[in-house]
Amino acid sequence: MKYLRYGEIGAEKPGVLDAEGRLRDLSGVVDDLSGATLGALPQVDPETLPLVEGAPRLGVPVAGIGKIVCIGLNYSDHAAEAGMAEPEEPIVFMKATSALSGPNDPVRLPRGALKGDWEVELGVVIGKTAKYVSEADALNYVAGYTIVNDVSERAFQIERGGQWTKGKSSDTFGPIGPWLVTPDEIGDPQTLALSLDLNGERAQRGSTSSMIFTVAQIISYLSQMMSLQPGDVIATGTPPGVGMGMKPQRFLKAGDVMELRIDGLGVQRQPVLQD
Amino acid sequence: MKYLRYGEIGAEKPGVLDAEGRLRDLSGVVDDLSGATLGALPQVDPETLPLVEGAPRLGVPVAGIGKIVCIGLNYSDHAAEAGMAEPEEPIVFMKATSALSGPNDPVRLPRGALKGDWEVELGVVIGKTAKYVSEADALNYVAGYTIVNDVSERAFQIERGGQWTKGKSSDTFGPIGPWLVTPDEIGDPQTLALSLDLNGERAQRGSTSSMIFTVAQIISYLSQMMSLQPGDVIATGTPPGVGMGMKPQRFLKAGDVMELRIDGLGVQRQPVLQD
Repeated sequence: MKYLRYGEIGAEKPGVLDAEGRLRDLSGVVDDLSGATLGALPQVDPETLPLVEGAPRLGVPVAGIGKIVCIGLNYSDHAAEAGMAEPEEPIVFMKATSALSGPNDPVRLPRGALKGDWEVELGVVIGKTAKYVSEADALNYVAGYTIVNDVSERAFQIERGGQWTKGKSSDTFGPIGPWLVTPDEIGDPQTLALSLDLNGERAQRGSTSSMIFTVAQIISYLSQMMSLQPGDVIATGTPPGVGMGMKPQRFLKAGDVMELRIDGLGVQRQPVLQD
Repeated sequence: MKYLRYGEIGAEKPGVLDAEGRLRDLSGVVDDLSGATLGALPQVDPETLPLVEGAPRLGVPVAGIGKIVCIGLNYSDHAAEAGMAEPEEPIVFMKATSALSGPNDPVRLPRGALKGDWEVELGVVIGKTAKYVSEADALNYVAGYTIVNDVSERAFQIERGGQWTKGKSSDTFGPIGPWLVTPDEIGDPQTLALSLDLNGERAQRGSTSSMIFTVAQIISYLSQMMSLQPGDVIATGTPPGVGMGMKPQRFLKAGDVMELRIDGLGVQRQPVLQD
């Protein structure tokens, strides 16, 4: 199933796609898609639900996300491109939840931003509390998968003292969606092609098969250090082709358009604005 | 006013202290203390509210905290003690909100933890959305102050690859409270003595006058990079005396008791357990 939330910011309703990809209203069945409901999403035939007319805005597909845990430098080909050694353990940082944004909402570069950059990533949404879980059991805690654009401001991230979270947390730096796709539709999460186009030109391309730490390994690893809660999101790292890695470097400017794709998870498209 | 939340985990009710320090039930006046209500807390005479009998558990004084932004190495005497240069800009990292814990709840060291440590910090709770605010205006965005114990596992934080968030985010690593104290009771937040006792012996002592970046500077700085939302918490850094800085180093073990104090903000007391 492909779950989603549609409507204006702050007033989104839950929805689901039917077999023809048409949007159906799920609000008669569940109040909202959130950590509280992800663990027991209703088994319902989308064809029996009301059709939603038009093409409403899509919101963040899960309400009330508690934390966004990001994994750094997790693709072997990206590490090679960057000339960096592969990490021995997952590199973990956080993106503020106030950065969350709909999959097609504009990305707004904050005042003073000079080095806005893009990162297409496989997003993992947790469905039930995970603590001290084994790698073998880890995927049972996944409610679904989605696309995350881990938008970054490299000067804030790297040149302004210390930790990365500064460059990851600006408002609109966390586009997520368009859908929450249940694991049965995806199968093995380590075989998905992912890409990002900038102004129609392919910038990033890769496959989750190049992940240094698999989704299962990441969930198990994180759960040793912190509990993962229903509705939490893990952004699992980005393949080669970010602007910082280009020669010469290329950074976002107002008017740019990013288009992100992952097999089975749909497309995101964000125009770039400058505050 | 000293606001608080009391009752069992997940079932806390809002309360307030009266002039004699007795606990009064605020649930007839406001549903809960949260980001949604902090901006307009009811003006009510606590003496008119029902007395709460007994000594109930105290919870996190604000429900639904969206993010915990932490400032690293922000005391000049702590930087000197650590032999480190004072940072030129605030060092920023995040603690997972799933780490939040009542002020007197046990701190549980996770499995495999060897280097649990303590950090008494002045916590700032945001009352209204702050974005691009000036230093002069910054304190107008503060709903109140509280104590935060930025509990840390130094091996997870420093020896396990990259960013600090790993060692800051274990469940129960974010005791906060006992109260949310409104700014009118505190006055200048840069004149507060703070201390932490380990097993009755003074470990940390300091004053917020030694902060490298003031509360107003921190709020203004962060608000250039991300919006601060009502209910967000900023932990503003710790004074000298953490276990990592002792010679020889001293780390938490089951049975230890931490007691934290800040002028006007009350006392926290946490026993330590090992998972």
